[in-house]
Amino acid sequence: MTVGAPLPITIATRADRFLRACRREAVDMTPVWFMRQAGRSLPEYRAVRARASLLEITRDATLCAEVTLQPVDRLGVDAAILFADITSPLPGMGVPLEIRDGVGPVIDPPLRTSADIAALRPLDTSEAVGPLLDAIRLVRAACPVPLIGFAGAPFTLASYLVEGRSSRDAARLLGLMREEPAAFRQLMDRLADATVAYLTAQVAAGVQAVQLFDSWVGILSPFDYERMVLPVMRGLFERLAPLGVPTIHFGTGTGGLLPLMASAGGDVMGVDWRIALGSAWTQLPGRAVQGNLDPSVLLGPWPRIEEQARWVLAQAGGRGGHVFNLGHGVLPATSPDDLRRLVELVHEASAR
Amino acid sequence: MTVGAPLPITIATRADRFLRACRREAVDMTPVWFMRQAGRSLPEYRAVRARASLLEITRDATLCAEVTLQPVDRLGVDAAILFADITSPLPGMGVPLEIRDGVGPVIDPPLRTSADIAALRPLDTSEAVGPLLDAIRLVRAACPVPLIGFAGAPFTLASYLVEGRSSRDAARLLGLMREEPAAFRQLMDRLADATVAYLTAQVAAGVQAVQLFDSWVGILSPFDYERMVLPVMRGLFERLAPLGVPTIHFGTGTGGLLPLMASAGGDVMGVDWRIALGSAWTQLPGRAVQGNLDPSVLLGPWPRIEEQARWVLAQAGGRGGHVFNLGHGVLPATSPDDLRRLVELVHEASAR
Repeated sequence: MTVGAPLPITIATRADRFLRACRREAVDMTPVWFMRQAGRSLPEYRAVRARASLLEITRDATLCAEVTLQPVDRLGVDAAILFADITSPLPGMGVPLEIRDGVGPVIDPPLRTSADIAALRPLDTSEAVGPLLDAIRLVRAACPVPLIGFAGAPFTLASYLVEGRSSRDAARLLGLMREEPAAFRQLMDRLADATVAYLTAQVAAGVQAVQLFDSWVGILSPFDYERMVLPVMRGLFERLAPLGVPTIHFGTGTGGLLPLMASAGGDVMGVDWRIALGSAWTQLPGRAVQGNLDPSVLLGPWPRIEEQARWVLAQAGGRGGHVFNLGHGVLPATSPDDLRRLVELVHEASAR
Repeated sequence: MTVGAPLPITIATRADRFLRACRREAVDMTPVWFMRQAGRSLPEYRAVRARASLLEITRDATLCAEVTLQPVDRLGVDAAILFADITSPLPGMGVPLEIRDGVGPVIDPPLRTSADIAALRPLDTSEAVGPLLDAIRLVRAACPVPLIGFAGAPFTLASYLVEGRSSRDAARLLGLMREEPAAFRQLMDRLADATVAYLTAQVAAGVQAVQLFDSWVGILSPFDYERMVLPVMRGLFERLAPLGVPTIHFGTGTGGLLPLMASAGGDVMGVDWRIALGSAWTQLPGRAVQGNLDPSVLLGPWPRIEEQARWVLAQAGGRGGHVFNLGHGVLPATSPDDLRRLVELVHEASAR
């Protein structure tokens, strides 16, 4: 920015700088929000959790809206994100779901056969996610910043369904993909259908952008991604386009997959911390980019946080279309005060 | 290759095609070996393990040489690699080491304070790794292909020392790096010293190439790698250069780190499966490249193995300086017959 240059008349404010950055329009300062900003590290969230489980919160519209809104003023972020789990819609497909402390989502029994896959029901959004849709309406009535909806991407959901829980190598899912490609494709297609229905319902209820979390896709070779996942993701993004809201496409460990993921879709590409944002962006021409501070830096002293946050901003190089975020979710031991200070730093250092 | 062109007079044979490819010299066909080719999936290895633990094998030169040689003829690979663990030299620094089935190396108590780090002894190669050095001499006397030595890189060894065992996020080590950078650097320097001593002794005993395994470095942001790891690795490679053998620099999850890793050193850059070999090589001008078939493909049916192996060869594009390997170690459930068939496929498909 040239010192003394007149500010554009269309200058964004906190209410719209996130959505403007998603569309690569001029902003007054770089918008910032954090994956997992709701929940985990906030004391007021822990107070809610003392009386309700994670599943209970996501099945109670008032509690869910409260938790979704908690970080907005405390941290000063430029967007809210619905408090839910990527597995939240699965019970609406007939899948038994538990969320265990210290383990995460558990599906017992997991899907193991093509008959299990064929038995998946189309998602009934009113049944399993009705309270989440009500929470969206409550948040929108009270929230000073845009509200982001989200869903797990089919490969990542399939990993939970087939492995039964978070799995480092997703060996059973990869086995299904290679031994029974037709069953794998059927599973991916059904999950894509459910994801479209889920996100369509979220947008109808009021979310102003949607993020697809393909958190586990980084275990795949580009060979397998291109043949087994990309066609499904491309179809999914094509069906989301008519919703008219920005789409964010996020994964972790994707340093070798970014151009393929971008070819599937996403107005904004979410980048994890294991690649320099500048190198990533060079591979993503024409896209906005979201990221990518290492979440573990926030467990260290403030000078380490500040220097690495400034490096992320330098990597973005003042280009339009940067949404500042972490490279993955906020870690539970993170200090909310450091998160707030980080928001202020990003705003001050990027002010046009 | 032009059909009918005369073969170069310097044509390599099985005895030297691996070393020639490391130096980017002409070869008759692409050399191939597999990380973890010794041990794990071989029935003859399991027979040895029925009477000796992993640590006992690495402390018995005859057994260690036997296990190192087992895959050479059975699989038809173009190089042998010493059977050892990356933690094998640690007892020679005064570190208590166990290797537990299903867990891997366990260090109890782990290093937690700067006093613990200061108490590390310089590696006494004759004491802890004497049998491994004797095994190298035995293998060299009997082996029809070059023998590769190896060591864990300092960051990866530090991860075991500070975490006490394999850790997905290395949270304690990252904490040390950020809270006590001087202690972290001291630990890295001592491990670099030990690694130089260990590899120097291996070369003196007869290994003809060395691989540095920085298996865990892929959890780092490029910011932290460049400041906290790269200077140590650069110094390490400078001290290995006078040994006069090719060096292989390997890590996993390094799609965003490859150019920085290459600037640290390595005649051959080892690439994992999560990036297309062609994209990786473009970032590594002037280097030989080793990799990068997804190890999990070998758990599937042969047609899937063959198509993905041919894709890796196509990514290499017939360029000189390709060493075919997996993107990480052989998985225990892999069939030795598929490995042998894969070696034959790579040789036939790449024959000049």
